[in-house]
Amino acid sequence: MILVVDVGNTRIKAAVFEGAMLLEVFVFSQIELEKNIKNILKNFKKTTDLMVSSVGDLGKQPFLAFDKEIKVHFISNKDSFPFQNKYATPQTLGIDRMVLAAGATLRYPDQNRLVIDAGTCITYDFIDQENNYLGGAISPGLRLRYEALHHYTAKLPLLSLGIPEDLIGKSTSESIHSGVVNGLVYEIDGFINQYKARYLNFIIILTGGDTDFLAKRLKNTIFANSNFLLESLNQTFQHKTKND
Amino acid sequence: MILVVDVGNTRIKAAVFEGAMLLEVFVFSQIELEKNIKNILKNFKKTTDLMVSSVGDLGKQPFLAFDKEIKVHFISNKDSFPFQNKYATPQTLGIDRMVLAAGATLRYPDQNRLVIDAGTCITYDFIDQENNYLGGAISPGLRLRYEALHHYTAKLPLLSLGIPEDLIGKSTSESIHSGVVNGLVYEIDGFINQYKARYLNFIIILTGGDTDFLAKRLKNTIFANSNFLLESLNQTFQHKTKND
Repeated sequence: MILVVDVGNTRIKAAVFEGAMLLEVFVFSQIELEKNIKNILKNFKKTTDLMVSSVGDLGKQPFLAFDKEIKVHFISNKDSFPFQNKYATPQTLGIDRMVLAAGATLRYPDQNRLVIDAGTCITYDFIDQENNYLGGAISPGLRLRYEALHHYTAKLPLLSLGIPEDLIGKSTSESIHSGVVNGLVYEIDGFINQYKARYLNFIIILTGGDTDFLAKRLKNTIFANSNFLLESLNQTFQHKTKND
Repeated sequence: MILVVDVGNTRIKAAVFEGAMLLEVFVFSQIELEKNIKNILKNFKKTTDLMVSSVGDLGKQPFLAFDKEIKVHFISNKDSFPFQNKYATPQTLGIDRMVLAAGATLRYPDQNRLVIDAGTCITYDFIDQENNYLGGAISPGLRLRYEALHHYTAKLPLLSLGIPEDLIGKSTSESIHSGVVNGLVYEIDGFINQYKARYLNFIIILTGGDTDFLAKRLKNTIFANSNFLLESLNQTFQHKTKND
């Protein structure tokens, strides 16, 4: 068994895998990290490896505490990946984006793939059918847009995520929900349409915390899988083990 | 002559009008307000009225200092406007959005109008051909998106506005430029397409600080006029004077 941990900008997601099979998913905050990992290892005693991917500012220390019980791995952009990295600045390519690209490459061979991760940020990552990672785009995620409207203006309220009733918001709250949610949906469909106009034989994977909320609102057909990063981490681990 | 002043979230724009004719535009920060207004009044001695619209947190006091020289007016949502306000929360409708709606109503009669103001926030405002103001949407503006990506993540840099080289960003900077700029362009075209699908006999006005940068990137045909808010303030003043 392997425990994979994805440290994001706002929360931590973890999952236990037995081979390719996902057994359970856990979501918690950074301060609850130690307690949660302890619990997981107690409940899944056959866990042999802990695989960490981190884009947050949490260091290695909290994970190294488990080094005596199990093997701890930190995935980094120095590891081997199943694609050719054509990024001009590979040292600043977020490890989460590399893991997503690896997962898309391994799971969907011989296709052009666009992975959209809708979390704190929206990341767009493109790997062509010859397994070249070409890059993508980064824009603010749903909650970040709500936060920014409040934080950087004098008079707009801070709202939590809401479903816009209509295209035309009939109150300040409804205007913000329409601008944030409809705006992001148009953005994502716009990006997908541009990629589709350029590439054939194309698959789109949507993942991240806002997968389900966004998936039903998009016009384009996509594969929605909120656990794609965790599954990709597991696949990257299997790939790494096979190639080491 | 009339001096109109638009106090936004990040900067102040002012203009002197003689009737409908715009004579000069000024842009300055809040701390330079008093000095700039003094200078303008010195250079345009025939100015009789000062008309202020404010969404920022600047109060009335700095303007009232000029009350002895000229008539000072603060436009508010209690004034008479040339449209029927169908907004459910008129007390929280930003005065800038009301002025834009007034300008669109007066200048483009008997049409459905969508006004898009691209400043700190992007505001979308719709007034139908029967002069009903129906509402719209609010989303983060270009610079706000750059700021938010840096402010709310652990590792993304703060960039200033840049032209994306391509759809596919090949570095972290290029990914951010593509996500922010292309993302907003797809959002705006997406909104316009939805309105066009619902309404015929339709005009779109784009204004605000990012007018020129965005106008050339949109697929839809729009009227780009970065001074539309100032011109609308002047028209609202003429309308008010006529109806008072």
